[in-house]
Amino acid sequence: MQITALRIHPIAIADPPLRSSYGLHAPYALRTVLELESDDGVVGIAETYGGDAQVRQLEALRPQIIGANPYRLTGFLSPMVEGQGGGDARSQTYLVPGENPLDANTRTYAAIEVACLDIIGKSVGQPVCDLIGGRVRDEVPFSAYPFYKHAGGGGEGDDAREDEYGEALSPAALVKQVQQMIAKYGFGSIKFKGGVLEPEIEIETIKQLHRALGPQVPLRIDPNSAWTVDTSVRVGRALAEELGGGGYLEDPSAGLDDMAEVRRRLIAEGISTPLASNVAVTSFADIPRSVQLDAVQIILCDHHYWGGMRQVQHLARLAKSFGLGLSMHSNSHLGVSLMAMAHVAAATPHLTYACDTHYPWQSAKDEIVLGGRVPIIAGCVRIPDKPGLGVELDYDQLARGCGRYARYPYRKRDDEAEMRRHVDPAWRRVLPRW
Amino acid sequence: MQITALRIHPIAIADPPLRSSYGLHAPYALRTVLELESDDGVVGIAETYGGDAQVRQLEALRPQIIGANPYRLTGFLSPMVEGQGGGDARSQTYLVPGENPLDANTRTYAAIEVACLDIIGKSVGQPVCDLIGGRVRDEVPFSAYPFYKHAGGGGEGDDAREDEYGEALSPAALVKQVQQMIAKYGFGSIKFKGGVLEPEIEIETIKQLHRALGPQVPLRIDPNSAWTVDTSVRVGRALAEELGGGGYLEDPSAGLDDMAEVRRRLIAEGISTPLASNVAVTSFADIPRSVQLDAVQIILCDHHYWGGMRQVQHLARLAKSFGLGLSMHSNSHLGVSLMAMAHVAAATPHLTYACDTHYPWQSAKDEIVLGGRVPIIAGCVRIPDKPGLGVELDYDQLARGCGRYARYPYRKRDDEAEMRRHVDPAWRRVLPRW
Repeated sequence: MQITALRIHPIAIADPPLRSSYGLHAPYALRTVLELESDDGVVGIAETYGGDAQVRQLEALRPQIIGANPYRLTGFLSPMVEGQGGGDARSQTYLVPGENPLDANTRTYAAIEVACLDIIGKSVGQPVCDLIGGRVRDEVPFSAYPFYKHAGGGGEGDDAREDEYGEALSPAALVKQVQQMIAKYGFGSIKFKGGVLEPEIEIETIKQLHRALGPQVPLRIDPNSAWTVDTSVRVGRALAEELGGGGYLEDPSAGLDDMAEVRRRLIAEGISTPLASNVAVTSFADIPRSVQLDAVQIILCDHHYWGGMRQVQHLARLAKSFGLGLSMHSNSHLGVSLMAMAHVAAATPHLTYACDTHYPWQSAKDEIVLGGRVPIIAGCVRIPDKPGLGVELDYDQLARGCGRYARYPYRKRDDEAEMRRHVDPAWRRVLPRW
Repeated sequence: MQITALRIHPIAIADPPLRSSYGLHAPYALRTVLELESDDGVVGIAETYGGDAQVRQLEALRPQIIGANPYRLTGFLSPMVEGQGGGDARSQTYLVPGENPLDANTRTYAAIEVACLDIIGKSVGQPVCDLIGGRVRDEVPFSAYPFYKHAGGGGEGDDAREDEYGEALSPAALVKQVQQMIAKYGFGSIKFKGGVLEPEIEIETIKQLHRALGPQVPLRIDPNSAWTVDTSVRVGRALAEELGGGGYLEDPSAGLDDMAEVRRRLIAEGISTPLASNVAVTSFADIPRSVQLDAVQIILCDHHYWGGMRQVQHLARLAKSFGLGLSMHSNSHLGVSLMAMAHVAAATPHLTYACDTHYPWQSAKDEIVLGGRVPIIAGCVRIPDKPGLGVELDYDQLARGCGRYARYPYRKRDDEAEMRRHVDPAWRRVLPRW
């Protein structure tokens, strides 16, 4: 089997005005859809980060991809994820996921790996999770992912989407948003994006969420490194008082040293709430120091930038060996990414928390999966009894996504610029903010 | 695809009277050959440790194996390798590889995984290394593995094998043995089994080997935990003086604490010779403490007891992340194991040393691979352009192996008993001996 065609589709998808410490989501999020076609006509697909740089990185590999055997291409390209020497540190604090040039190789490799696995799965009639070791679960749990947000459903002008969830800039509105999301998708846990309002308001939001949803729903907060060590400890204390030890605190402060200091001070107060990260630890090279400092107790994997599904499986085994938890990071995405996330999670025994997903924030109008949006039922994505990722492209929808990409000016994600454009002309990302 | 038949073949293969700190190899080494047959008539094979206990462990899984899809069986059985909680410590110092009850699950799982991968590879027409991420090398380097030995080629009575290498109980005889092995197989590095004679004689053996072979041939010694910390440091010093920093010292002392002490003392003398282990670290659960103590700098993987090929790949990624080297352990084996070792090594980027193999010690008379022994050329096994492991069973030879198993009384490996039987009736394994 040989790969005879590579098609790269940059698309733009409507995205609501969600807030985080990075700033504000633009009206369109960018994604790249990759197709590999084999000489026997099988097409493998993948979805990854978007924008012109990602397209260029994939395009640059065309000579290696065309003519390759999809079973072997991942081995041939493995220097992109293994790097030289002990592994290349890739962590950075300021850039949004997908815009860190240090993980361009692992991101690009991951998209190719997923498309190769899809082509293989479709050619042999097996789901992707069963090609990479075999599923350990058929249903993959995801979390509700509430955000503070402005009014609006994403998109611009006559391409604007319905604002399904409305404005949410207060604890009460956030609770309503979560209840709406749970009613629709049945999520059994909450990952709440903080770092946007005063910490006291965010603590109050957690309290109201906890009281509205009941103690059986795990709650976690991710302020994207917006807090000082003092604030992180204060929120950690409030979280522990309210939740009685459940949940975790994700990237409260920036960098391994401050994370370690937060951890030490919480432990000194008898609070064992673990710290999670997808900022202080984003590559294998970050782990030894993190372990040494006990800075991060839960690593958020993401096959999109960790270098693909198999690297996530390696990461999970490493995490388990060192007594670390594993959860999954998400970025604005459509159904092809959701299915890839579900497949790798299905084939990763040591997945200790429900995965994140932005999927509820995207609209059916933008979905590129044939047949429409992937169902999330009782908070879970079920691995379908279909080969490969279990989804095919809807080429009309894909063309619309490419059309939006061409029509609107967004070429990279820049939440800071959006914040200045729509909220506060003087806004800058300052860490720590509180 | 469903597995419709499981066949377990316990075999005995002639093994020369090799010496180690465990004692003496018996006239027959034991192996188990596993066959899985699918409903479309494809047969997947694997070779693993031998003896009645191994047969029972495989047999016990028959209900889960029959009817299973080979793509999914490895996921279904993954609790056997993932264990509960943070992972189960499995290291022990006294038992020979294959006889540690703590790794019975990972050993058994590995054999099933390899047979499943072989069945998959044969059904889709792809080599195993390309099913597990894709090869990063076509040729896998192995080391010569000289042993002190008594006269004899293995086997008993009229089933005795030719003594190809003769007795080797002195430095000069050992050098001759290595030269003979290099002439035949082209090995480019030497892993020398020590822990048998007085350390001064073993140091002299290393010196003579180094002088005979030249500085371009890496030399390492493995006394299987036979030495005190003092002796280990003394040998480490002599090795460094002779080799100028090349090579490594494998399991000089027993246990992580003594290994760490050897390391500290060598480093204090400015000697950076790394310590390797397949005794102090034999499972993922052993690694955190080893890293903390800097006890082991090179882990010897072995898919046969680490839980299969994918677990070895996880281990390699972990090792790379923590700046550890990776080599491969071996046990007396035939061509099916050799090919499995070659496939996993081919698909493991972070393999930093040539692999061990006992293969030169086995005889063509015992080989179960159709067409005879797997070629080792210029010290390397080449991944053949054939599906699966690239080898098929010779059923006549397999039947002969089963016949020997039935005829001779060996049912588990017991090098201590053999030592008492043939060399010294009072012999006991004492650690440390020197």
